[in-house]
Amino acid sequence: MGGIERSAVETLDARDPLARCRASFTLPPGVIYLDGNSLGALPAAAPGRVAQVVEQWRDDLIGGWNRHDWLGWPRRIGDRIARVIGAASGEVVVADSTSVNLFKLLAAAVQLNRGRRVILSDADNFPTDLHVAQGLRRLLDDTIEIRAVDADALPRALGDDVAVLTLTHVNYRTGVMHDMPALTAAAHDAGALVLWDLSHSAGAMPLALNDAGVDLAVGGGYKFLNGGPGAPAYLFVAERWLEQVQPALSGWMGHARPFDFDTTYEPAPGIERFLAGTPPVLSLAALDAGLEVFDAVDLRLVRAKAIALGTLFRRLVEAECAGLGLRLVSPADPERCGSQVSYAHPDGYAIVQALIARGVIGDFRAPDVLRFGFTPLYLRHVDVLDAVLALRDVLTTRAYDDPRFRDRALVT
Amino acid sequence: MGGIERSAVETLDARDPLARCRASFTLPPGVIYLDGNSLGALPAAAPGRVAQVVEQWRDDLIGGWNRHDWLGWPRRIGDRIARVIGAASGEVVVADSTSVNLFKLLAAAVQLNRGRRVILSDADNFPTDLHVAQGLRRLLDDTIEIRAVDADALPRALGDDVAVLTLTHVNYRTGVMHDMPALTAAAHDAGALVLWDLSHSAGAMPLALNDAGVDLAVGGGYKFLNGGPGAPAYLFVAERWLEQVQPALSGWMGHARPFDFDTTYEPAPGIERFLAGTPPVLSLAALDAGLEVFDAVDLRLVRAKAIALGTLFRRLVEAECAGLGLRLVSPADPERCGSQVSYAHPDGYAIVQALIARGVIGDFRAPDVLRFGFTPLYLRHVDVLDAVLALRDVLTTRAYDDPRFRDRALVT
Repeated sequence: MGGIERSAVETLDARDPLARCRASFTLPPGVIYLDGNSLGALPAAAPGRVAQVVEQWRDDLIGGWNRHDWLGWPRRIGDRIARVIGAASGEVVVADSTSVNLFKLLAAAVQLNRGRRVILSDADNFPTDLHVAQGLRRLLDDTIEIRAVDADALPRALGDDVAVLTLTHVNYRTGVMHDMPALTAAAHDAGALVLWDLSHSAGAMPLALNDAGVDLAVGGGYKFLNGGPGAPAYLFVAERWLEQVQPALSGWMGHARPFDFDTTYEPAPGIERFLAGTPPVLSLAALDAGLEVFDAVDLRLVRAKAIALGTLFRRLVEAECAGLGLRLVSPADPERCGSQVSYAHPDGYAIVQALIARGVIGDFRAPDVLRFGFTPLYLRHVDVLDAVLALRDVLTTRAYDDPRFRDRALVT
Repeated sequence: MGGIERSAVETLDARDPLARCRASFTLPPGVIYLDGNSLGALPAAAPGRVAQVVEQWRDDLIGGWNRHDWLGWPRRIGDRIARVIGAASGEVVVADSTSVNLFKLLAAAVQLNRGRRVILSDADNFPTDLHVAQGLRRLLDDTIEIRAVDADALPRALGDDVAVLTLTHVNYRTGVMHDMPALTAAAHDAGALVLWDLSHSAGAMPLALNDAGVDLAVGGGYKFLNGGPGAPAYLFVAERWLEQVQPALSGWMGHARPFDFDTTYEPAPGIERFLAGTPPVLSLAALDAGLEVFDAVDLRLVRAKAIALGTLFRRLVEAECAGLGLRLVSPADPERCGSQVSYAHPDGYAIVQALIARGVIGDFRAPDVLRFGFTPLYLRHVDVLDAVLALRDVLTTRAYDDPRFRDRALVT
């Protein structure tokens, strides 16, 4: 094994300070899950929490809103997320989807930075981030402009017409991680606001939004936060901006006094003004169970283990899969990479399918990328070892030539 | 009992063709629930359906999206709603909240009817409907105008500057029901589009959006559709408009090919273009269980029973509570009223609390309205009788003078 003995890998697990966290999840037997960066695994507490909310609905009916403070959950759970992303209590609220929250905060940024009309982004940003900006531009009759450039051209593109720089912290395909403090500072120097999408980093590493001076952020609940398929998303607005934004997507749950049923919108004093509709209580219960796991976790340990797992994976692939057609597309330096490692291969799609058939679940991203995510809370070092052994087997036997692995009707 | 014997009321239940539907719900013992128009009761199938999805998440992880067609649920469940509201398959999709969907469709209406800049509405519309319009106006720098007038002034206010007439079909407070076919026709005659909010009527009566020529509609999932607290909402776009709208709130799930990860938004060919973020699978499972009940139900029977229950309630209140300070604020004609009856009383808040303490759950709406909702799928005629007896008792004994019923910190 490329100079790495299984016993040495097992020793890494024995010494892993996060090893106990695996018991906080229920994982299917016989599966090595390298796609928690797409949909996190089931927290062991989630089924009970969801069932409990169903019982509250059954027994308390409309009274549940008060008796269980369901209306307070977006803020309460937002506070849990605040700790994970380095924000203060009252700066984060759980609501809607990442896309809808992007829309709210892009509209807010354009409003806060009037006179400037450019949304600057990375041309390789996650598609929905750019789709949302395009929809806002269309709605505003092209009075705003979207400037999407290569990542390394971002500093130069920060002209005095840029209202907001919006980036996804970690690239979904390659794992490339932007330097959040440096780009935030550069944007501020240029008079622009920053809006970070944390979907592919929150929960996988310590984030320090306030230390970096971030203005606005959004993120999803179903990746490293383990909130379940289509879990509610969240948004962050730095306290200094909160009172200055009149939300464009204003709904009754963001009103200062929703139950006065006042027909004139008046924003709630705090982060609740960014709520629109009624909180999705069942989904919030599952997300809350996912976040609870983080309460007792040091995210520096999470990041250290993510780098250790990723580095082990890289070394093993170099040793075991050399000459088999894989090309690293993630940064060579693991410190500049999110909690994933990606390789290109012309048969990438079929290779991922063949691995899934062997119980090793990674992900394929068009056009040719095999993506392996490392979720330190429930992944072991031996899982990484076994995953690479399976990958080597698929490549050397050309198992991916099997026609059933080439049917593109299935997208995982 | 005002000339109405309990035995006669029991006979009504014995002959009720919808009586069997009560078994499709799990109701807490000792409760008469007259607030299903605010949060519907738990469908008996919902806990199992939600638990099943949690197991799918546990066992299939990312593969659940394909194996269980989670990505197809917004459209599949939308088709279930289509039957309930008189729309065709492919015209309805489940997504987001009512507020967010209102935003999407108001933006669509303004786009479809360019040159006209007025959003016309009822000044007593549900607050969020007006809040959303106000947010859109602010975002569009007051280039659109909101005209909110009394309901009876709507036809006169339909000038040639009106882009869209947006109304909630049934008033949340009084139960007043707009004449959907007539107002839709009047709007069309004036060159305006119509956008109906069906939150307070869908599931309580047959709706016929396509027969009435409705252009756009939205509605919530947690009232008469029994989808659970904060259930996902839905939107309807008439097939003739679908291909002409570029959604303003465009996200990756509304892209023609989301998994191509194309950074340029291209709308999906059908109603899916109005999706933005990832579908909330846990919440969708509960909503689906709620909608399943409607598959075997004739909505004409639902409406007939709603009128029967409401009429019985009115007659009993007239007979038993005369001179006790209640003033009917719902239309005198039950045919012009939604599935609720509302009364004003200066002590309305405390009366509702005193009723809840007796197991009769109605609702209070500011400033002084007692609201009683009738959900024909699980309410019996004897429940209506017992509710009025409790109301009479609360009023005659002035139980509502108890200070614990006057604490406004609790809003139900």
